[in-house]
Amino acid sequence: VKDSGVKDSPSSPPPFASEDALLAWLREIDPELKDWIGDDTALLPDGGSRVATVDTQIEGTHYPRGLDPDTVARRLVAVNLSDLAAAGALPAYGFLSLATPKGFDHRSFFTAFLQECRQYSFQLAGGDLASTSNAVASLTLLGEIPEGGRWVSRKEARAGDSLWLGGQVGGSALGRFLLAEGHATWQSGEVSLAETFDPAPILREAAERAVRAHLSPTPQLDLGLWLGRQDRAAAIDISDGLGKDLGRLCESSGVGARIEVGSLPLPSEIEKLTKFVQKSRLEITLAGGEDYVLLFSLPSSVQPPANFQCHRIGVLTHEPEIEWLGLKRLTSSEDPAQSSSLLQGLGWDHLKESR
Amino acid sequence: VKDSGVKDSPSSPPPFASEDALLAWLREIDPELKDWIGDDTALLPDGGSRVATVDTQIEGTHYPRGLDPDTVARRLVAVNLSDLAAAGALPAYGFLSLATPKGFDHRSFFTAFLQECRQYSFQLAGGDLASTSNAVASLTLLGEIPEGGRWVSRKEARAGDSLWLGGQVGGSALGRFLLAEGHATWQSGEVSLAETFDPAPILREAAERAVRAHLSPTPQLDLGLWLGRQDRAAAIDISDGLGKDLGRLCESSGVGARIEVGSLPLPSEIEKLTKFVQKSRLEITLAGGEDYVLLFSLPSSVQPPANFQCHRIGVLTHEPEIEWLGLKRLTSSEDPAQSSSLLQGLGWDHLKESR
Repeated sequence: VKDSGVKDSPSSPPPFASEDALLAWLREIDPELKDWIGDDTALLPDGGSRVATVDTQIEGTHYPRGLDPDTVARRLVAVNLSDLAAAGALPAYGFLSLATPKGFDHRSFFTAFLQECRQYSFQLAGGDLASTSNAVASLTLLGEIPEGGRWVSRKEARAGDSLWLGGQVGGSALGRFLLAEGHATWQSGEVSLAETFDPAPILREAAERAVRAHLSPTPQLDLGLWLGRQDRAAAIDISDGLGKDLGRLCESSGVGARIEVGSLPLPSEIEKLTKFVQKSRLEITLAGGEDYVLLFSLPSSVQPPANFQCHRIGVLTHEPEIEWLGLKRLTSSEDPAQSSSLLQGLGWDHLKESR
Repeated sequence: VKDSGVKDSPSSPPPFASEDALLAWLREIDPELKDWIGDDTALLPDGGSRVATVDTQIEGTHYPRGLDPDTVARRLVAVNLSDLAAAGALPAYGFLSLATPKGFDHRSFFTAFLQECRQYSFQLAGGDLASTSNAVASLTLLGEIPEGGRWVSRKEARAGDSLWLGGQVGGSALGRFLLAEGHATWQSGEVSLAETFDPAPILREAAERAVRAHLSPTPQLDLGLWLGRQDRAAAIDISDGLGKDLGRLCESSGVGARIEVGSLPLPSEIEKLTKFVQKSRLEITLAGGEDYVLLFSLPSSVQPPANFQCHRIGVLTHEPEIEWLGLKRLTSSEDPAQSSSLLQGLGWDHLKESR
């Protein structure tokens, strides 16, 4: 198809500044949408146990060009399962839309995809295939809330609740950076570090973990199911970074948060490695995204079982602000103007730096 | 994300020759899949009335670059609804995955998309947004079989049944060609023909209809619902061309077909216009695709109500061959080698040309 047949619209209004601005506009022009958009999944009103979610992985946008098709398939499934995890659901049916360039190895993709279907007990139930210059894979999952569980949304957080993280954040962003800079490569599920990349041995292990966190995330389905069995919980999975996703959880629930930056799960190796590659700790930790761990709230009297290895990182507040206690720990030795611009980019107009 | 971080797999088996070859391989490696893939929609086993389908529209692959976002939105919905039509279903919920380049007019896209939701009475219930260089829109629709109806599949055709088309074929392919060659342009729902493109006035109207058939197809939902109320019917929507989709219907049902080429709904204007632009009638008619009309079978004693304007084009046979009676009508004055290669490309190894 050539370009010639279609003209542009005569005039276009300015584009939206952000995804959140677009979603706000949608809620405004169609008030019914507010019940549907804003959560990672939708709860379908057919008895109350069916949920649905969709996510897309685009070559060059969500993962590096040339990535093994089997890794693409596993990542696609993991990212979608993470949405179900945040809802306290398990997958039942998958619908796959796959557009691929010439020479794409469908055997490798589907062999891995069907392994994931078996591992997580869901049925590939339909899809469509197309050709394109740049691989695009979109997966819709229909899931079920198991008996004894409830749908977990972003809206059930209350002031006074504790705020928890289901794992570490920042590793994925660091791994993405290492791949993009050529410090690391990934082939058939194995990480190799470049010979020219020579940190201390303990940091080499951290670098390998970071690449793995980026390309091969693990959805926290069991943690999500546990949350669905609590009297009250709110959850979101960290796909766009702790900063943005915390803002979404708070906005959906109409609360604010006070975060103890010193309580964030930042292993010293990750901090050192971030410094070694001359990246901003603030950016990697709060804006990095794609960690696919759960950020959730629970009444202050409740804490998740120790085996989930969760971290209590703060408390929810009445005032709709996000307050970072001890943020200097992340911004010291960094360019103040850059830090400030990053924080504004995260939408923290009301940022208060108290200590 | 740069290219450097990821290596290609060491060796890849040869790619599949066709989508059908890939689907055959999938059925082989996972026998359970045969109950799921091969129809336009999946019937979910939760009481028997919920169906699901997914389709993707990629800029430059499925529609011309620069197409109005509102036309893209309407076409995306129409293409998906056509799959539900072939199943005898109506839409209930939509899940949209939309990846767009910088400057994409989301307002225009979503205004049109939400109009379609209202017109066809379904709820946009979730989705995800991403940035990419080339627009990709993927829609999953969950639908319902209305009371008194059944799920219509491709598998219920029997030898002796009549074969019907719900409308004309070839117009969409011709319209695509006119756009690609710059003979026609499309803006805000209106077709304009180039000044340099000067067929007879009656052919100008046919050209406008062809462009409209390509960019703005109409899903045959009412016809699908009628089929679902019959004792027995099989249906598929013509997305990849009458040739391929007829082959799929026959293969799914284990039958063959005898087509009366003289009965195909080929208006003389379309034939003349095809000749005027020096395209192959065989290619436009049988291989063109994207017509989104229903191809269906009914017991020979049954015929669809006249208001649906369907065309009886042949009969289904025991022998698993597709026989085209009077094919010379389409191939005369065309290059025999080209015709033969086109027919082979459609997978008609058993092609019999009887008259």
